[in-house]
Amino acid sequence: MALDRLIEKIEQTQNPTVAGLDPKLDYVPEYIRKKNFERYGENLKGAAKAILEFNKGLIDALYDIVPAVKPQAAYYEMYGTAGVKTLYKTQEYARSKGMYVITDGKRNDIGTTMEAYAAAHLGKVKVGLSEFEPFLGDALTVNGYLGSDGIKPLIKTCAEHDKGIFVLVKTSNPSSGELQDKLIDGVPVYEVMGKMCEEWGKELAGVYGYSGVGAVVGATYPEQIKRLREVLPNTFFLIPGYGAQGATAKDIAAAFDKNGLGGIVNSSRGIMCAYQKQKCGEREFAEAARREAIRMRDEIMGIVGKIEIGR
Amino acid sequence: MALDRLIEKIEQTQNPTVAGLDPKLDYVPEYIRKKNFERYGENLKGAAKAILEFNKGLIDALYDIVPAVKPQAAYYEMYGTAGVKTLYKTQEYARSKGMYVITDGKRNDIGTTMEAYAAAHLGKVKVGLSEFEPFLGDALTVNGYLGSDGIKPLIKTCAEHDKGIFVLVKTSNPSSGELQDKLIDGVPVYEVMGKMCEEWGKELAGVYGYSGVGAVVGATYPEQIKRLREVLPNTFFLIPGYGAQGATAKDIAAAFDKNGLGGIVNSSRGIMCAYQKQKCGEREFAEAARREAIRMRDEIMGIVGKIEIGR
Repeated sequence: MALDRLIEKIEQTQNPTVAGLDPKLDYVPEYIRKKNFERYGENLKGAAKAILEFNKGLIDALYDIVPAVKPQAAYYEMYGTAGVKTLYKTQEYARSKGMYVITDGKRNDIGTTMEAYAAAHLGKVKVGLSEFEPFLGDALTVNGYLGSDGIKPLIKTCAEHDKGIFVLVKTSNPSSGELQDKLIDGVPVYEVMGKMCEEWGKELAGVYGYSGVGAVVGATYPEQIKRLREVLPNTFFLIPGYGAQGATAKDIAAAFDKNGLGGIVNSSRGIMCAYQKQKCGEREFAEAARREAIRMRDEIMGIVGKIEIGR
Repeated sequence: MALDRLIEKIEQTQNPTVAGLDPKLDYVPEYIRKKNFERYGENLKGAAKAILEFNKGLIDALYDIVPAVKPQAAYYEMYGTAGVKTLYKTQEYARSKGMYVITDGKRNDIGTTMEAYAAAHLGKVKVGLSEFEPFLGDALTVNGYLGSDGIKPLIKTCAEHDKGIFVLVKTSNPSSGELQDKLIDGVPVYEVMGKMCEEWGKELAGVYGYSGVGAVVGATYPEQIKRLREVLPNTFFLIPGYGAQGATAKDIAAAFDKNGLGGIVNSSRGIMCAYQKQKCGEREFAEAARREAIRMRDEIMGIVGKIEIGR
């Protein structure tokens, strides 16, 4: 239930990080691009196939030490229907390797439409007498601007299929404050949204103290992380903005409780483009990604300490 | 530029409505389902193919009298990669018939990720030396919770490719007020968001007085429509909630200016399921949809009066 499967993977790997798979075509080593263009054409399909090969290489290099992947839907939709197929195949491959899959889609809508998104990304769809899984996420990022009508359908699907969600609360970008920091009766919008998460989460309680309704809280706002951890004791944080967006391990320390639980930190470009930064040659992209993942894990575990879930 | 192409289509058809294509499989006539299941299997692909046939029938019945379609991404993602292909094919068919395509995806993210969504849904993507259109929307619905970092990349793409966006401002659902009605210095969140749209729109000014940054404003909140029309003089409204959600033509009157411009009203189920309501037999689904579209047009035009764009 809830985000317990994720928490167990984090404890098992002693690693509260997630590898973001946001594969711009530029990130893909040229030899992989070339091979797939020759085979499938220099078009959306060729690009999508190249990205899939790249993703699989990354997953192979990471699955025993990193608990989760977070494919960002935008970078797959960018390559059209072929790209969306690569999203599915990436989820399928990550799942086959035992990784927890967080689909970063920031989906939002109401009522039956939100039920459709929930079924699409976290549930099953019935056609005739059979049921199918349209996409293969274990959790989905969502946007709560529409209120409970947009979240309740997800809660139901999460309860039925042992899945979770992460609601945008305080995002990592510079302009996130334009709306999110504005005060409602003296309380910032992000905290109002956070408290709604805490409420929604009551219907998806987990065994390790955290519900199935997590919150996206940017690493770039350490003060807000601290405050939100205090007022949202049962809400697990998905933390973007580490590395490429400038935040460090110290910035995210307050997200974690005394058992080393409470958050999972994302790195996308840092891991995917490690071979460029390490200047080690593109054929070593997977090894470079693994080295960076280990470096990041060790840096964050230096702050977090041991992770214990006290079964 | 801006939403001018949409406004011209509205004037040409004298019809400020959009047909929402939210095709739950239950809406599709049984004979279409059966035929496609026999041909492609009783699975996600068979469902997606049945939906495409249904959509094409609806478009054939509507394209000369209704200016636009609004496919809702959730109902396509629900049928997996096959469903997403049906989204593309639906957009392609509507475009071939001269309809304006509003992709209802409520996408949101920041920076390069939002650029990826913008390219996916409104722009083009370069692979090698060629450019491709991943999806075929003329406009996209988006969620502005993340602030300008989430909107600016769209503005750029809209300017380059003559496209538009609709930002969620005041949604039609009962719980929309949980966040949207809360007061920030005495001003409701939806109005704060609306004013951001008005600002963002300055970079996408249109020739008929409305910018390329529209707002989603629910028909179920007539008072808020009135207020928003007053304070957002250059923001065009996409108005859901008419019909199935209970709002009437009178409720949306305030959205329109003296030239009959200012908004486009969506009906999804009302049109798609007209054959069920009219009890006319499922093989008449297209004619029933056309009858309902004409009824709706006449009802709304009774309030709006003549639409003039004063070229």
